[in-house]
Parts: sequence; C-alpha cells; structure tokens
Amino acid sequence: MIQTKGYAAQSAESNLEPWNFERREIGAHDIQISISYCGVCHTDIHLTRNEWFPGIFPMVPGHEIVGKIAKVGNHVKKFKVGDLAGVGVIVDSCRECEDCRNGQEQFCNVSPVQTYNNLGKDGKPVYGGYSDNIVVNEDFAHHISEKLNLAAVAPLLCAGITTYSPLRRWKVGKGHKLAIVGLGGLGHMGVKFGVAFGAEVTVFSTSPNKEEAARTLGAHHFIVSKDEAQMKAASRSFDFILDTVANDHDINPYMNTLKTNGIYINIGMPAKPWEISSFTLATGNKVIAGSGAGGLPETQEMLNFCAEHNIVSDIELIDIKDIHTAFNRMEKGDVRYRFVIDMATL
Amino acid sequence: MIQTKGYAAQSAESNLEPWNFERREIGAHDIQISISYCGVCHTDIHLTRNEWFPGIFPMVPGHEIVGKIAKVGNHVKKFKVGDLAGVGVIVDSCRECEDCRNGQEQFCNVSPVQTYNNLGKDGKPVYGGYSDNIVVNEDFAHHISEKLNLAAVAPLLCAGITTYSPLRRWKVGKGHKLAIVGLGGLGHMGVKFGVAFGAEVTVFSTSPNKEEAARTLGAHHFIVSKDEAQMKAASRSFDFILDTVANDHDINPYMNTLKTNGIYINIGMPAKPWEISSFTLATGNKVIAGSGAGGLPETQEMLNFCAEHNIVSDIELIDIKDIHTAFNRMEKGDVRYRFVIDMATL
Repeated sequence: MIQTKGYAAQSAESNLEPWNFERREIGAHDIQISISYCGVCHTDIHLTRNEWFPGIFPMVPGHEIVGKIAKVGNHVKKFKVGDLAGVGVIVDSCRECEDCRNGQEQFCNVSPVQTYNNLGKDGKPVYGGYSDNIVVNEDFAHHISEKLNLAAVAPLLCAGITTYSPLRRWKVGKGHKLAIVGLGGLGHMGVKFGVAFGAEVTVFSTSPNKEEAARTLGAHHFIVSKDEAQMKAASRSFDFILDTVANDHDINPYMNTLKTNGIYINIGMPAKPWEISSFTLATGNKVIAGSGAGGLPETQEMLNFCAEHNIVSDIELIDIKDIHTAFNRMEKGDVRYRFVIDMATL
Repeated sequence: MIQTKGYAAQSAESNLEPWNFERREIGAHDIQISISYCGVCHTDIHLTRNEWFPGIFPMVPGHEIVGKIAKVGNHVKKFKVGDLAGVGVIVDSCRECEDCRNGQEQFCNVSPVQTYNNLGKDGKPVYGGYSDNIVVNEDFAHHISEKLNLAAVAPLLCAGITTYSPLRRWKVGKGHKLAIVGLGGLGHMGVKFGVAFGAEVTVFSTSPNKEEAARTLGAHHFIVSKDEAQMKAASRSFDFILDTVANDHDINPYMNTLKTNGIYINIGMPAKPWEISSFTLATGNKVIAGSGAGGLPETQEMLNFCAEHNIVSDIELIDIKDIHTAFNRMEKGDVRYRFVIDMATL
C-alpha cells in the first residue's frame, strides 16, 4: 500500500485536519500522480458538511487535481514518469454501458466512482486531491500542457469542464448573445470560454462593483440583476444563459431575458428545487438544460483547447493550513476566482 | 359590418349560449371564411372559465377553425372564393419583429392577436370559431387539402401544430425512442406524428385500459405510469418525452426514464408550477423544453405533411348545443380524441 498524507474531515461536524491514509498499490493500468496543486470547489464544502446528503467519513475532498507522474503500471501506455497529468470528478466507471461508450463516463449507470466520497470497485472508500498523491487508472487521467501555469490549470478539471461542456453541447459561438449569471469559479470560466468561442458575453451580477472585473475577463456587457430597469431593458435579449449560482435563487426573472428558442443552462446546483411555470417555458419555446461536468474525451478536448488558447483559471494560491479561511471566504463569494492549494505546503 | 351567429360565454360563470355579433367588413387583404367545423381545445374551457387569468367577455372561443372561403378582399392573392382554409391560434401580429421575421408570429412581442379573448389592432375584441364565419387577414389563414376529412383536419390547427412543432424542432425521428405522456387530443397527435417521423413510440398513461387504443394509433409500447415496476424498468430509456397532460402532475418520475442528454418536451400547460431539482437535470445533462403552438410557415408545413401522409385527428363530431356535455366529458378525459363542432348545427 502507498502511504499518503492528506487533509480530511473526520465527520460532517469537524474541520479538515491532517490525516494519514493508504492508497492501493498501482496496478498494471494505474498511474501514481504526485499532486502539485488541487483546486477548491464549492462541492468540497457541500460534501464535507453533509449539505446535500450524508457522506463517507473520513473524507479527503478535492477533484481538481494536477501533478507529475511518479510511477506507472506495467501496461500503462498513455503516460510516462515525469509527465504532467490531471484528474477531475471521476476515477472509474464500467466502460461498457451506453454512457461510457458515448464518452459520458460521469453518468455511468453501472459502477461510476467519483473522485472522493464514493466507494471504489473494491468496495473501499476513495480519497480526493487534498493529499500528496493519487493512484488512478490511466484512462481517468488527462494530459496537461507544459505551456500553462500548472496551479491555474487545476480548476479546469471541474470548473473548466463544467462550463465548457454545455457551451459546446449547445454550440454557443459567433453571432450568439450569451449571458452568464454569477461571477465566481464557474462564472468566470464561462466568460472566458464564451469569449473564446466568439459569443457576445454579458454578465449578470447582484453586485454593481463586479462590473470592472467582468470586463477585465472579457465580458462585453454587464447587468445588475437587482436593477429592474436594466432587467426590463434586457427582455428577449439572449440566445443562451449560463447560470452558475450555487445558492437558491429565482430563475424566472432571467427567463424573461431569453429570446424565443433561448436556452437556459444550469450548472450552479442550488439545493432547493426551482419552481417553473409551464407558461414561462411555452411562451417563446424556452428550454432549461442541466449539465453535469463532462466525460473523459471532452475533458481532454477542453484541456487541449485551453492550451491552444492560453486559457486558465484566475486563482488565489493558498497553503493547505488556510483551507478553513478559504471555505469561509467562498461562502461569502469572496474569491477571485478559485482557491488552489499548493500541495508543497502539506 | 358582417352579422355573425355564434356561441358565447357572457361571463366566466355562465354557460355558452347563442349570441349574435358583428365581424369587421373584409379589408383588401382579408378573407371571410364560412366556418364548417371548429375543434374543441382544452384552452376553450380554461379561458371561458377564467381558470388561467381574467378574460374578455362576451367570449366566443374556438381556435381550430376550418371552412370554405366565402369572400376575398381586392388584394388577396393566396386564396380564391370556394377554397378550403383554416385558422389556428393567431389572427394578427406586427410582421416586423424578430419573431415575426423568423416565422414565429405566435410570439410576436409588438402586437400579437390571438384568435379569441384578445383585442385586435383596432382595439376591439376578436371572436373565435364557435361561429358561422370569421374574417381574417389572408396571411393568417392556411391552405387545406381537399383529400382529407375536413372535420378531422380542424384539430390540426392547434393540437396538430402544438405537437408537430416541438417534434420537428428537436428532430425526432428514426433511431429515437419517444415517449408520449397522456393520450388525449394532444397525445394522440403526438403518437401519430412520432410514428410518421420514424421514432419508436411508447405511451405513458395512468389507465391500463388505454393500451389497446394506444397501439391502434400506432404506438409500439405502453407503460402504466402508476406501476412502479414498469417505471423502474423504463429507467434511462427515452431520447425524448412529449408531456401532453393538462392537469397538475409531478414530472420527476418521468425524468428518470430519459437517457443521458434526453429532452423532456412540455406542451400540457398545467396551472401549477413544476418543482424541479437542479440535480435531476444535471445528472444526465437533461433538458426541459417548452413549446407554444407554431408559427405561420410551420403550420402550413404541418398541414401539407398531414395531407401527404394522410394524417388527421381522431374526432367525435358534435352538435353545438352539446358543447357543455363535451366540456364535461373532456374534464374527465372522456373523448377519443377531440370533439369537433359541426357548425351546420348552429
């Protein structure tokens, strides 16, 4: 077994603290990644605190993992020792169901294994990236370009693919008006991808003081969503809206800003169900589309696109001992735009 | 002015009774249709009873209108006296806004005029098809093939286009599994179009005794939606679901029967908003799509498709004096599948 150092929550009531645990020995198709950086996703807060459902403890969170390959199994073909590699939200699946065959392993119906707070195929808990190494089947790791700032690549493994995938599915691009609701970890990646795909991008925010930041990221327009006059002026404006807000909120005012045939894409995962009237959707043939991360091939495609277009996340690099401060600041929306843990501080 | 006989509700509390009123003289671009048949849509019940919002009374309902052209204005080009013609849910619009230019006049943002319970551009109420004639701009009337049973064509003008339009938008066809929720006026047209487009069609119904009828219409499979074992067996089965149910109902059990990337199309218009969790949509990238009727070009396209493929509604032809019995039976779902008023009985 591989001795591993990490930070874990021992229960939903406890803070994250240092914890030593074991990873499996690498199998023939496994790689061991020495973790350099791990992004801090809002999901890490939700899951370590049982905010969505009861978790598996001790829990080592983290699914925005980048690092260098330390070891490879005998049959590994995709990587060699010393390569950069990344791991996102999923570390195993059945490989045989319709979703796996279609490259949407994140929805595998048979044996999906999320990166943490899940049981592996051996029935044992798997542990995430707030740790010094991870062992994973090579198919579930991705190549990362040497050209990019590695720490700023980490958030691409979740925030990046979660915004990239729906914008690609709906073919958002030139000639389209795209609005982004919320300017956090997901929202700021939505702006970057929307601009890179050629769309005219507007940011909706409750805070007028985010306008400058939005424009710095490349947004063409900014709307204060609490300002009724601005909202009314934006009626029937957008082909697409990407809603990235994690807190409970009413989506109906935004629906009015969609054009006929407009698509409202939700990736923010508020806990409370939305209330939506059938009339709101019927008037203008409107659509609400959910989207959950992305599959393996599309994650690699996204990473390649980012290398080609020099896209990374804007980050604040932190020591792992400051993870609680980071969680608290994230709950207030006080981060530009993603905390990333420097694993050298572990 | 043109003296007109019809049936009207004098208030939301009163039954429909005979009522004489005036239509405008035909203008240069108008046609006058002598109405042969008018379909009875569930909307006629909702609106005459203020079930959705306060209406304009007296109200002459009816927006599934077919008949013969009695008169044409001086500049009418599309029709001549004696031609068959149909009118659906809309009788005027601005013709200049983005939606009108895109052939989606039903969503005109400037001056849409619905066929009844609306004010015309002259500020006067417009009256629907439970009457002996209608005057309408030629652009808002459609050609109808002599080949089809005219009475059975009437429901195509609302139930037909309302089901045809979303199935076309989402390109439902060969290789797709389509489920229809509810087997009423809309649902039975959904089955017919789904089969005609080449999809493998399943009907969901709460009533096991509708199976034979569903199969007679062409459905390949039938699922009793109250049967948990059948619902579980149908998990992740469908590419598309067309929900045609007008009453309040929980859509979440049906969402589980969608495949990854599946589309849930709603056209049933229940009064109560749905509650939908963001997790339900994110897991499997699921989509809820609204759809409201169809525009002028697509309505003509649908009528042409029906003529070519010999598709009409299954109807029960009634005398206009029996309209209350029809309303009552519709409220119990007791009609196969659309009542159509024989206007010769007026």
